[in-house]
Amino acid sequence: MENQPRIIVIGGSAAGPKAAARARRMNEFAEITMFQKGPDLSMASCGFPYFVGGFFDDRNKLLCTPTGVVRDPVFYWNAKGIVARTNTEVTKIDRKNKQVDFKNLVTGETGSQPYDKLIIATGATANKPPIPGIELKGITTLQSMQDADYLRKIRDDGEIKKAVVIGGGLIGIETMEALHLAGIELTLIELLPQLLMFLDWKLAKLVENYLKSKAQVVTQNGVAEFIGENGKLVAVRLQDGSEIPCQLAVVAIGVRPNIELARAAGLEIGDLGGITVNEHMQTSDPDIYAAGDCCEITNLISGKKVLAPYGDLANLEGRVAGENCIKGNVASFPGTIQTGICKLFDWGVGITGLSEEKAEEAGLEYVKIVNASPDKPGFMDGKLLITKLLADKNSRRILGAQCLGPGDVAKQLAIWATAIKGNLTVDDMLNADLPYAPPFSLAIDHSIASAHIMQNKMNGLFEGISALEVKEKVDRGEDIFLLDTRGADEFAETRLGIGETLIPIGWLRSRMDELPKDKNKEIITFCKISLRGYEAAVLIKAHGYTKVKVMEGGIAGWPFEKEK
Amino acid sequence: MENQPRIIVIGGSAAGPKAAARARRMNEFAEITMFQKGPDLSMASCGFPYFVGGFFDDRNKLLCTPTGVVRDPVFYWNAKGIVARTNTEVTKIDRKNKQVDFKNLVTGETGSQPYDKLIIATGATANKPPIPGIELKGITTLQSMQDADYLRKIRDDGEIKKAVVIGGGLIGIETMEALHLAGIELTLIELLPQLLMFLDWKLAKLVENYLKSKAQVVTQNGVAEFIGENGKLVAVRLQDGSEIPCQLAVVAIGVRPNIELARAAGLEIGDLGGITVNEHMQTSDPDIYAAGDCCEITNLISGKKVLAPYGDLANLEGRVAGENCIKGNVASFPGTIQTGICKLFDWGVGITGLSEEKAEEAGLEYVKIVNASPDKPGFMDGKLLITKLLADKNSRRILGAQCLGPGDVAKQLAIWATAIKGNLTVDDMLNADLPYAPPFSLAIDHSIASAHIMQNKMNGLFEGISALEVKEKVDRGEDIFLLDTRGADEFAETRLGIGETLIPIGWLRSRMDELPKDKNKEIITFCKISLRGYEAAVLIKAHGYTKVKVMEGGIAGWPFEKEK
Repeated sequence: MENQPRIIVIGGSAAGPKAAARARRMNEFAEITMFQKGPDLSMASCGFPYFVGGFFDDRNKLLCTPTGVVRDPVFYWNAKGIVARTNTEVTKIDRKNKQVDFKNLVTGETGSQPYDKLIIATGATANKPPIPGIELKGITTLQSMQDADYLRKIRDDGEIKKAVVIGGGLIGIETMEALHLAGIELTLIELLPQLLMFLDWKLAKLVENYLKSKAQVVTQNGVAEFIGENGKLVAVRLQDGSEIPCQLAVVAIGVRPNIELARAAGLEIGDLGGITVNEHMQTSDPDIYAAGDCCEITNLISGKKVLAPYGDLANLEGRVAGENCIKGNVASFPGTIQTGICKLFDWGVGITGLSEEKAEEAGLEYVKIVNASPDKPGFMDGKLLITKLLADKNSRRILGAQCLGPGDVAKQLAIWATAIKGNLTVDDMLNADLPYAPPFSLAIDHSIASAHIMQNKMNGLFEGISALEVKEKVDRGEDIFLLDTRGADEFAETRLGIGETLIPIGWLRSRMDELPKDKNKEIITFCKISLRGYEAAVLIKAHGYTKVKVMEGGIAGWPFEKEK
Repeated sequence: MENQPRIIVIGGSAAGPKAAARARRMNEFAEITMFQKGPDLSMASCGFPYFVGGFFDDRNKLLCTPTGVVRDPVFYWNAKGIVARTNTEVTKIDRKNKQVDFKNLVTGETGSQPYDKLIIATGATANKPPIPGIELKGITTLQSMQDADYLRKIRDDGEIKKAVVIGGGLIGIETMEALHLAGIELTLIELLPQLLMFLDWKLAKLVENYLKSKAQVVTQNGVAEFIGENGKLVAVRLQDGSEIPCQLAVVAIGVRPNIELARAAGLEIGDLGGITVNEHMQTSDPDIYAAGDCCEITNLISGKKVLAPYGDLANLEGRVAGENCIKGNVASFPGTIQTGICKLFDWGVGITGLSEEKAEEAGLEYVKIVNASPDKPGFMDGKLLITKLLADKNSRRILGAQCLGPGDVAKQLAIWATAIKGNLTVDDMLNADLPYAPPFSLAIDHSIASAHIMQNKMNGLFEGISALEVKEKVDRGEDIFLLDTRGADEFAETRLGIGETLIPIGWLRSRMDELPKDKNKEIITFCKISLRGYEAAVLIKAHGYTKVKVMEGGIAGWPFEKEK
């Protein structure tokens, strides 16, 4: 066949292989070459923490097709008709001559190869802080197959007893779980005031409280120096002067897009440091596409450009780039709502859409609620979920959902992600028709219940107050009446201990005289999850009290110390 | 307080209590009375099979709030300010005088009580077939708490060894699981040609194949007679004359709406035998609402009226009726997309939106695909899901999804239910931004992969053929070339044995000469899940073959016998 397009893909991790495979399906006869700087192809890099953590033992599972074939150059040639050149770095994109220069990092061989269309999928590199001692042995990231092998060997050897993880983002927390499961005593160090910065403060605090049952967690404190002996790490000194002995430090303070090639070739780079692409994943050069962690993409809710280095989006972007480089710009990748999830021990934690902070940045007027309730009936061993939902005050459109807990977080986020994708409003979700049977959900699914709470709040049926605001009022000594509406047995077991009065909901109608005489006094109601708290608030308001608020999320969502 | 509205609710199971509670929150001072014919209130009736099956032992868990308070009349009065009259049947609705007549079935006391607004939530009754012997001891349904207690006692006694379940719908299959877990040898008997009539044939057949590993399954055969000795069931005789010895028969052949009161009061009844309501859950009498299994509601996709006796919808309808009877018609229940799910042993099985049959009935032109692939990566112990997706041929709107298998079926259905709710198209779902991390999904979630397959089919990238059509062609001896593209090891382990040729995908480009010389000959490709089959089809078509089809769902979706 003559005059078939020549496609070059730079990058062989996620976006690159997907783009190459999609291009192949669009044209059986195109010449497709994929360059990969490292030795491995199509590594399931999101799976590294689970290999390190011992969820499985065979590293090849990270490199294989579902039927157990290693995705090496032989596989790519035989199964896909794609030339994959591993250990081969593209050193230059020559746009004028439409060719790339490359160098084999093992043999030293250099060469150049022409393209009709080029796809840049160079990914991102883990940041390493410019801190004294960073070159010591025992300091690593968890970004490459080699990193994973190194940490897995540490697990298998069992010699290292103490480690620190630097960075409380997704990768840091996943790494922390992995090393904890390897039997290593851990400290997680985060420079910022909270973990998982994409979450709002209270939810991040609940995560932190949970993680503290597994490891030390230090926030608002960074590493000032890595301390070594004989070239090996023995401790880290923090910015506050304290020292933590450790033989291992894993740095997980985010990634930055690999854009050197693109920049050198004069392609447009965005304000956030990623390659600029349009919705067709096309760069400022019409013959060059880009996909994956090296790009900036659009947040569909705020309309702003964002860096969203997630493996799922890399695949979707690669698919679009691969199709368009053969067919012209027929396919679009509209953007992201920045959905993210991670597992931490028995919990899931994640977000889709906007957090409160992001909604404020975007200048949106929003209403927020917290729903703490189980995912399934008690008799089917239902587990707690805490959801924080944001909706636009005027259009009532769903803006974002954060969810965490031992319950089925993934399903909740999937529902909200799809709802946001569909521009659904709170009112659309009130009567969602979701799959119900007791092994899978409550009769009113947690997501629908969240919509009900939001409707009630938007319609003025109750006014909410956050745990943080309550704590601040208590600390300031404000004159408020705090009403716990749980049962006496529950109260005896655990309570907030902030001066609250106990009146179980079943007694409230007959004990209204125990409420403040002053109907303008602020009353804050709550229970375990604030459902009974809500019922109490509605009741009290009906009796003429003017300042009644429900503490959202109840005791389950209280991020501070409690009395036991 | 004077002149407060008097609300009467007939029915205390699901829709009734929800309506009463919602009415209370709308008006703290309304007089609310709930009549319940039986002794129990707010029974979690969907949980009966799991009580019978031994998932939990305390029957009170079916009657309690999450904090363990039994929902009896005392609870309803204290916690909700609702008068609940149990064991009390409403015998007449007197619309002229706006009152109901009632009778206490224990004391015999009768009386009447006026209403301003009435909510009918009388539910449905399990059908019992008019078959000789139906009155024998040992024949039951699983609809009431008493039924559940009866069957649980059978489990605990351990004396009954053989049972039949009559009816292969949701309840029949859940009951079958429960009794199997009770150690009883079972036969499931279904009059129609397939189980779970809401599924399309092939998916129902896959369910049947799976269930046959647990119990006998008989289809296209009904019970002609219950045979007894000394008043006790000892066997059933089927319509084909065969007899099955059994000491227990559970009848689960559907339910019919309880509309006698409504009909006698002259309220409008729909063609399907349910009470007619508008979107506000208001009957033909503006002062009377109805909610739950006794009503007909609208299918949101087809626009047709349907009976949809599901516990989740009953709650949502009750909430709307409860709000409207206080506030006027401010709330709406738009209708259902008939989402349903059930657990059967290690599988989930369900549907949302339209099946193929329903889409045809609705006169819609649709495209269908099957996606058989795991829910998570292999290294995270991913489990198979089989999804059948339907989309409108013209608008490309998602019409329905059926899903089954050991994987996370509930999440898939929740995603599609929300997508249908949002009128999303296949193209909207191509780049859905769902929560991805290896413990929760593949990098390209199964639902997104289903959308990709649908796009590929709609755009003509491949043509599909169902397993049934392939089987029929083979049985007719049609001259077709069947190409299995798996590895030799997989082929050695299991194969269809329908005359197929094995050429592993990795060899196909170099062995094209083994394909038929006649480029117009029909070629059907497949693999385990038909991903490699799809790649092969694209490749072969590119070489000028004109009739290439992919067998959808691959070997995983093959509902017939296989060679081992």
